Amino acid sequence: MMTDVAEQSGETAGEAGGDTAARFGTDEPGAAARIAAIRERIDEIDRTLIALWQERAELSREVGATRMASGGTRLVLSREREILERFRHALGADGTQLALLLLRAGRGPL
Amino acid sequence: MMTDVAEQSGETAGEAGGDTAARFGTDEPGAAARIAAIRERIDEIDRTLIALWQERAELSREVGATRMASGGTRLVLSREREILERFRHALGADGTQLALLLLRAGRGPL
Repeated sequence: MMTDVAEQSGETAGEAGGDTAARFGTDEPGAAARIAAIRERIDEIDRTLIALWQERAELSREVGATRMASGGTRLVLSREREILERFRHALGADGTQLALLLLRAGRGPL
Repeated sequence: MMTDVAEQSGETAGEAGGDTAARFGTDEPGAAARIAAIRERIDEIDRTLIALWQERAELSREVGATRMASGGTRLVLSREREILERFRHALGADGTQLALLLLRAGRGPL
């Protein structure tokens, strides 16, 4: 599939003509085609990241609502620490930042 | 599949006994089981987010390396703006923060 994408994007990069440098940051056609192909996959990843982000925030708010409806606590800090640690372990400092954003999105309005 | 997970996690929540409140923030068994099931899906999402994050950072660095090897620019700011806008549009202020993190991770060492 990556090959198909590469071929399609290669044409696109080629057809772009004078805009190639502006769009891909290089006017070398082979490099521009390769960049276009990789960008297709990055765009696909971004669409998935956005969809998972939304699903996760919704699920997380559902957890909070379920807990409070049963007379429980609004948050479980040990669970939040576990998630922070998981992301930090996998992605380093960026992981901590990402987890903090995810946790905040999942808490919903305070 | 969500049902299977719910059943399994329901048992787990039940077996946890005195730890249920600490682990799930509620001591109501039905709510704890439901929370355990949702957490399974959240954990699955988190594993995917981490894997996609790593793949994306690698691809993004490959784009930069390809561009520079062909005598092009290190960054293409119009592309970065496009990505920021995509995340902001889908996820609001959190999306902007997420995109800034993603872009930074993809730039690699300066």
